[in-house]
Amino acid sequence: MDALACSASNLSPLLGGAANATAAAEYICGRFEAVSNKFVDTGYAIDNTYLLFSAYLVFVMQLGFAMLCAGSVRAKNTMNIMLTNVLDAATGGLFYYLFGFAFAFGNPSNGFIGKHFFGLEAFPSPSFDYGYFLYQWAFAIAAAGITSGSIAERTQFVAYLIYSSFLTGLVYPIVSHWFWSSDGWASPARTDNNLLFGSGVIDFAGSGVVHMVGGIAGLWGALIEGPRIGKFDHNDRPATMRGHSGTLVILGTFLLWFGWYGFNPGSFVYILKTYGESGSYYGQWSAIGRTAITTTLAGCAAALTTLFGKRLIAGHWNVTDVCNGLLGGFAAITGGCSVVDPWAAIICGFVAAWILIGCNKLAEKFKYDDPLEAAQLHGGCGVWGVIFTGLFAKESYVNEVYPGKPGRPYGLFMGGGGKLLAAHIVQILVITGWVSVTMGTLFWLLNKLKLLRISTDEEMAGMDLTSHGGLAYAYHDDLDSTQKGGFMMA
Amino acid sequence: MDALACSASNLSPLLGGAANATAAAEYICGRFEAVSNKFVDTGYAIDNTYLLFSAYLVFVMQLGFAMLCAGSVRAKNTMNIMLTNVLDAATGGLFYYLFGFAFAFGNPSNGFIGKHFFGLEAFPSPSFDYGYFLYQWAFAIAAAGITSGSIAERTQFVAYLIYSSFLTGLVYPIVSHWFWSSDGWASPARTDNNLLFGSGVIDFAGSGVVHMVGGIAGLWGALIEGPRIGKFDHNDRPATMRGHSGTLVILGTFLLWFGWYGFNPGSFVYILKTYGESGSYYGQWSAIGRTAITTTLAGCAAALTTLFGKRLIAGHWNVTDVCNGLLGGFAAITGGCSVVDPWAAIICGFVAAWILIGCNKLAEKFKYDDPLEAAQLHGGCGVWGVIFTGLFAKESYVNEVYPGKPGRPYGLFMGGGGKLLAAHIVQILVITGWVSVTMGTLFWLLNKLKLLRISTDEEMAGMDLTSHGGLAYAYHDDLDSTQKGGFMMA
Amino acid sequence: MDALACSASNLSPLLGGAANATAAAEYICGRFEAVSNKFVDTGYAIDNTYLLFSAYLVFVMQLGFAMLCAGSVRAKNTMNIMLTNVLDAATGGLFYYLFGFAFAFGNPSNGFIGKHFFGLEAFPSPSFDYGYFLYQWAFAIAAAGITSGSIAERTQFVAYLIYSSFLTGLVYPIVSHWFWSSDGWASPARTDNNLLFGSGVIDFAGSGVVHMVGGIAGLWGALIEGPRIGKFDHNDRPATMRGHSGTLVILGTFLLWFGWYGFNPGSFVYILKTYGESGSYYGQWSAIGRTAITTTLAGCAAALTTLFGKRLIAGHWNVTDVCNGLLGGFAAITGGCSVVDPWAAIICGFVAAWILIGCNKLAEKFKYDDPLEAAQLHGGCGVWGVIFTGLFAKESYVNEVYPGKPGRPYGLFMGGGGKLLAAHIVQILVITGWVSVTMGTLFWLLNKLKLLRISTDEEMAGMDLTSHGGLAYAYHDDLDSTQKGGFMMA
Repeated sequence: MDALACSASNLSPLLGGAANATAAAEYICGRFEAVSNKFVDTGYAIDNTYLLFSAYLVFVMQLGFAMLCAGSVRAKNTMNIMLTNVLDAATGGLFYYLFGFAFAFGNPSNGFIGKHFFGLEAFPSPSFDYGYFLYQWAFAIAAAGITSGSIAERTQFVAYLIYSSFLTGLVYPIVSHWFWSSDGWASPARTDNNLLFGSGVIDFAGSGVVHMVGGIAGLWGALIEGPRIGKFDHNDRPATMRGHSGTLVILGTFLLWFGWYGFNPGSFVYILKTYGESGSYYGQWSAIGRTAITTTLAGCAAALTTLFGKRLIAGHWNVTDVCNGLLGGFAAITGGCSVVDPWAAIICGFVAAWILIGCNKLAEKFKYDDPLEAAQLHGGCGVWGVIFTGLFAKESYVNEVYPGKPGRPYGLFMGGGGKLLAAHIVQILVITGWVSVTMGTLFWLLNKLKLLRISTDEEMAGMDLTSHGGLAYAYHDDLDSTQKGGFMMA
Repeated sequence: MDALACSASNLSPLLGGAANATAAAEYICGRFEAVSNKFVDTGYAIDNTYLLFSAYLVFVMQLGFAMLCAGSVRAKNTMNIMLTNVLDAATGGLFYYLFGFAFAFGNPSNGFIGKHFFGLEAFPSPSFDYGYFLYQWAFAIAAAGITSGSIAERTQFVAYLIYSSFLTGLVYPIVSHWFWSSDGWASPARTDNNLLFGSGVIDFAGSGVVHMVGGIAGLWGALIEGPRIGKFDHNDRPATMRGHSGTLVILGTFLLWFGWYGFNPGSFVYILKTYGESGSYYGQWSAIGRTAITTTLAGCAAALTTLFGKRLIAGHWNVTDVCNGLLGGFAAITGGCSVVDPWAAIICGFVAAWILIGCNKLAEKFKYDDPLEAAQLHGGCGVWGVIFTGLFAKESYVNEVYPGKPGRPYGLFMGGGGKLLAAHIVQILVITGWVSVTMGTLFWLLNKLKLLRISTDEEMAGMDLTSHGGLAYAYHDDLDSTQKGGFMMA
Repeated sequence: MDALACSASNLSPLLGGAANATAAAEYICGRFEAVSNKFVDTGYAIDNTYLLFSAYLVFVMQLGFAMLCAGSVRAKNTMNIMLTNVLDAATGGLFYYLFGFAFAFGNPSNGFIGKHFFGLEAFPSPSFDYGYFLYQWAFAIAAAGITSGSIAERTQFVAYLIYSSFLTGLVYPIVSHWFWSSDGWASPARTDNNLLFGSGVIDFAGSGVVHMVGGIAGLWGALIEGPRIGKFDHNDRPATMRGHSGTLVILGTFLLWFGWYGFNPGSFVYILKTYGESGSYYGQWSAIGRTAITTTLAGCAAALTTLFGKRLIAGHWNVTDVCNGLLGGFAAITGGCSVVDPWAAIICGFVAAWILIGCNKLAEKFKYDDPLEAAQLHGGCGVWGVIFTGLFAKESYVNEVYPGKPGRPYGLFMGGGGKLLAAHIVQILVITGWVSVTMGTLFWLLNKLKLLRISTDEEMAGMDLTSHGGLAYAYHDDLDSTQKGGFMMA
């Protein structure tokens, strides 16, 4: 707005010969001030339009998770897993409103945890408007959604309610404070310029903050409660536990893809921001478009790599593997999506596909059972995404997206030195440690208290019958069958 | 724009000492006029972007209804109910274009019914652009979608076509004229300031106008044609009539949630509007974000209340009940979403959940059968939403959203007196009366003419076989089975 | 921006009496220049917001196609057809990035093919930003999605990979260059004003460029490989090959409807553009709203026409026919959606419904088997859409949407002469010829090389079992069944 500033005391002497130079200058400058204010209003309207619709897209991911999870479990546990997805959003809504957002973004605060805006008090403020809360809420519930996949088909419903509240209300908000709040100890945008390794962590939309957190939480949950009955036979060979609907898997995957356009490009929060001179065609709107493209290409590359990779390994064109590969590519690009070139995104996706294949091999070897491959996909590819950004972040993009600190480190392979990568390795260690200590302890405690795993009988019968009042499907309905089973109870 | 206005005749004397003061002033002011016009253009572009994408979201609700309804009926009536949802949109498109919009918003007019813009004649105008028509059309078809749920599984297709046209073409548009058109007799924004109880009815996005209308219409339809065969046994005990797919219920619920972000926040129509001074961070964009949050929290609170409430009552964690509770919370907050605080929205949702539980008890008692609980949910929670707004509407929000009438009444519990509540009770009575007289009579007439209910044989066989050429599903397809059943007829 | 231009050398003499007239003028004009630049920034932010969300909507169509196709094939081929839809997007992403976009829009170039921006090199530029690439990519993959429907249930997976890459990477981009690039030989917006028949082809969102291309490609594929086993009996009577899920058909149809709001109104690319004077309520934002309405009404009219038409012909209310009719209406209005009146859109849809019914009759007669009716729907209704535009394009709309050439031809029935229609007939012939030569040859070649059609055994067993590792559904899951069939392979 500086170029627009009109100072009557500056203009007045220039008009000195006028009848009333001071009044003339005030008259003119007053109008420029009004123009300047109108631009402020206009900017708020545009940025909020952009942010709100992005938030709605991120919310769609919750539906995507629900459909993906439902399709990936056996029919007898469908209602159970979908209910957890609905409740992620619902409990997340209340807890994030009450204190989650405050822990994450309640500035001014210390580097570890925020402390303002509990229950949206003192909202909105010059720094945060309601749309931002909604956007961050949609992110918080996504993390919990990831974890529910790992522990599907064998977890008590009450355990689910406890860990989900704990994760969205405390564990995740604190991590997001570290990396995304301007006060966070590892934030790349700290106002005091006291940056970790002179750089801070660039985890733009959360390969670490969201995907690693959800994935590692799931890893501990699934490890502690052990594999589903029948997953490994007497000789420790893994059996196939097929999901009940490939159609739902595809539906969920596409919805997640759709929602990811809110997740990654939406993380810019503002679209009306120039890079350099005002009046140029290149600005944050371009960076946003580029981010949508890097996201797309990473997913595409990972999907195709998985398609051909699994064809070689397993001998057929596997649909769900392609879907998981695609999502692994997205999880990996999420951290660096805004600061890498499209060609680098293709590399990101290519590697992510192999990482997922490798993690799945490891899981089999260690008799780890994760019905959604969630720990492998979000955890494994999330780690890769954090490293990838440390390698491929491009100088000009880094300076545009994280401005105000010229000479900051960028990707190792792009000639930016090892400091960014070092910060990112710290991020991996710290997130792994924090989530292991908090969520690992919680799952261990729940297990000790016999609150974690359902009984063998329940597991064999399926939770829909034992806990949720009936099965999800009743395709053959005669009058008679209305007396038995079914999902709608009086 | 006033602050921007530059008058040459005012500026010229100030520049009096200049060589050609008049020309200089005109030169300068001409440019400010151009600036002012550019802001007008910019505003139209932003507001239409906001409104159009909101309209698309509201349209998604039609898909949400289709999936929710499909999942909630028995497999044998799936095609039937989904077809009605497609036709809501299609017949609604034609009738709302021909005269529905004209009846609703055809100003200048009287307080009862509008009378311009038939077939979009004289469109666009300074007051209405095409995007507004699209948005209102998406609302109109939602009302009809509600009703179709109440009378599902036993209504003749031709009856459906008749009531749906009548509802979207006449009954609903007239109600929306009363409360939403600036000429409506109960509008809170009447230009002549002749407001009902000095207040008018604040039904922002339509707890009354949409949900009560759809719910009460459904109530009469379902009452007049009676319960489905087998719903109540010899001893009048209700049987469980399970829907055929819990997955579709969840899918529909999430899609409705997604669409509700168009329905409620979208009802602001404009996002570029300041509250108070230009240049402030707080404006209609903030109110829109807050509305998205009140909507979210009401739904979340209702879902959780239902979860635990039904756990106590029925002994298990019921998924479809949670979904219905969630939607009941949305239906209730719809009326006051823009004028209440987030904490009030939580109360709104909490109560809505118990209202729905209560209405369902009543329905059982009176042997009322509504396959979607649509009358209970949209009617019952809609009534609560109308009352809730009369109790909790906050002074500052009311004056921001309905400006230009300082000192107007607001919520009783917020210290705003009883006038708003009084107006809202009138709304409840009037909508109940109007819909009962029009739709009740229509259903009664259809029943008399033997056009309402299908035959017992048809009901037992299911309408997909008898009216729509085949069943919705054919999971076991061998060549042989192509000769039998199935949904695709040559 | 001209009206905003402030020239110090013009203003200075007017202020001649001032103390420092030159400095005063520079001071004032400098601020106006800043204002002008701010408007440029603002415009980019708005237009990119509009374009990006439109692109996301178009992407949703890929999910729509996946669900529509899945529902329309037999259960045993569900995974196969859905995988092709995922891969359309994935291979399309890579190929369109590498050279598809360059062939289509790589200006400056010749009239036949573009030649810049391979791998997004030199991107963004003043003419193209990243959002535009994303939008065009979403279009490209839609074309391939159409074709996959025609050849469903009997095509080798490797053939699919080959034709899909060829179509999205080369055949489609070249067609879009002809009609949509400003260098294209038949473009209505050629900069040299050397327009085909003094008019160029007005195919706004692609009844010809997208739908005819996809449909004709599918026609050749399906013709060359012949009908599915069992489709026609010994006496050449067509059998009914039912799709396995009507629910998925409805889901897909609604998602396509939703996505079409990105496809048609989104094709304006910019929403902040005035028609005539700045400061008026009528501008491109109005035309965009009107386009959403013409799209809606054409679909609605086609759906209702099909409903009653098929009721008369087949004796029942057919759901999937209504869905296909609706989509046929959309495919037809796509070409002229921006330049016709709403009432004309109703005619467009009415005729499209009968065209589809007629094409389906023809298909039966000639023993043509297209599981999705894709060639009939997108090809047949696409041709009608191209002709329709030549008949009903309205003078004022044509001049607003394709400005800068006063007196240009418009619709024959609207008094605009036959030149536009003549250009459109050329378009039909040229697209038919080009796609037949390229795709027809490719399919013929694949057939010769035994790469096109699967074996009889495979076709009977279904491709999900033979090529994709298992069936899509496993509704009855006991521990035992995990050893058999199913879609998730270890």
